[in-house]
Amino acid sequence: MTRWALRLEYDGSGYVGWQFQENGPSLQALLEAAAAKLNGGQPVPSVVAGRTDAGVHASGQVASIALPDRFDARTVLEALNFHLKPHPLVVLEAAPVAEDWSPRFDAIGRTYTYVILTRRARPGLDRRVWHAPRHLDADVMHEAGALLLGRHDFSSFRAASCQANSPWRTLDSLDIARDGDRVLIHASARSFLHHQVRNMVGTLKLVGEGKWPPARVADALAACDRRAAGPTAPPDGLTLTSVRYPVDPFSPAAPDPAPAAAPPH
Amino acid sequence: MTRWALRLEYDGSGYVGWQFQENGPSLQALLEAAAAKLNGGQPVPSVVAGRTDAGVHASGQVASIALPDRFDARTVLEALNFHLKPHPLVVLEAAPVAEDWSPRFDAIGRTYTYVILTRRARPGLDRRVWHAPRHLDADVMHEAGALLLGRHDFSSFRAASCQANSPWRTLDSLDIARDGDRVLIHASARSFLHHQVRNMVGTLKLVGEGKWPPARVADALAACDRRAAGPTAPPDGLTLTSVRYPVDPFSPAAPDPAPAAAPPH
Repeated sequence: MTRWALRLEYDGSGYVGWQFQENGPSLQALLEAAAAKLNGGQPVPSVVAGRTDAGVHASGQVASIALPDRFDARTVLEALNFHLKPHPLVVLEAAPVAEDWSPRFDAIGRTYTYVILTRRARPGLDRRVWHAPRHLDADVMHEAGALLLGRHDFSSFRAASCQANSPWRTLDSLDIARDGDRVLIHASARSFLHHQVRNMVGTLKLVGEGKWPPARVADALAACDRRAAGPTAPPDGLTLTSVRYPVDPFSPAAPDPAPAAAPPH
Repeated sequence: MTRWALRLEYDGSGYVGWQFQENGPSLQALLEAAAAKLNGGQPVPSVVAGRTDAGVHASGQVASIALPDRFDARTVLEALNFHLKPHPLVVLEAAPVAEDWSPRFDAIGRTYTYVILTRRARPGLDRRVWHAPRHLDADVMHEAGALLLGRHDFSSFRAASCQANSPWRTLDSLDIARDGDRVLIHASARSFLHHQVRNMVGTLKLVGEGKWPPARVADALAACDRRAAGPTAPPDGLTLTSVRYPVDPFSPAAPDPAPAAAPPH
């Protein structure tokens, strides 16, 4: 078997999230069903970099699967995309990786983008946004966001359902800027707690509306109590845009994967 | 009655086009049904700047309707958007205009944007594109597009169904540039023939693929024969982005509409 890294794009609207669940369609189930078609109908388990929640999108999710050795990269990409039709999940790139490579544990950075649409009319064209009919001051949101940078106990921004061992995370960047009638929020960290980005966005929106002074964000962080921060922003505006690795498996300059151990004879 | 100019955004996927038709849902029918709710259930006919085809989108369509005098601009916008829910058609702006103002006949310019997605994977997120799995040379497409600028008989780029009196049009600008894996085409003219933008795009794509030398576009134009040009690009990638008027009815600096004539007594 050859292990493949896959770069994925998907519209999470109407899905229960990445992970397989009994109560509705998941992106994991779509990918694994397509991969099984390339494995004689046998199940193909997948590993993913970020288990996005229900309604969350991706333009640069990374997953891995193992397939029989007979495929080249182009065939993996084309065949998976053929079997994924007509669902809004596509494989952007496929690259062979070492057998022990993990999109989740080898990742050293994840970047999410959140979009808030600030106008009176709800979205007609791009509906992957949080609709905020009131004006938001993006500059003051950016200023307040800087108070969250660095290594902190992010308990105030952590979902009750979060299964991480530790509430400590290092927020590497949090850039907030206006682009026309949209406020764009880019957040990067090695990893995030469950709902961390959406809880930061819901809190910073209070600042953008003038309901909170920026300094209150530092108080909320210091409280280490979910009740001290703002509400959870809806999933619609959130997209996982990229996952970084020490060596990008999709870069043309990436080394060939380590040769597989000699097969048993 | 007060006449209102409305700036509209819509996703045309799944609609038969702007204009009312027996065989499926139209954007005109959605708008007029919402407007009738503000007119005691009585029909409210609309006029539109550009009767977009089935599957074509708009981010800056302009329409007009007449409503009873009791509404202000904010109420017109909010009430129409309320009644348009949950359809992907929204009113971005509403402004009172003179009784004889026409979004169609007073327009002095229309701009369309066409998006071609050039990558192997079909679109997963933004599906309002033409998917072209092969590389396109946007620079040579731009060069060829310049051969269409100015006043010409555009019969080679005109749908058989076109109802315009004359095939002569003046193409004011046609800008083609790459943005990542997208080729963006912006076309502006006072008005366009039926399918003119899509026929120009379908022809220029042949140039971008290297199947046509750029100069062949001038030959196709000179032939004044639809068979001399390329195929019609699909509607999915086309968006009406703006309509221009001698005085922008939505500008805060626009003069108040002329007072209505005294009503008959």
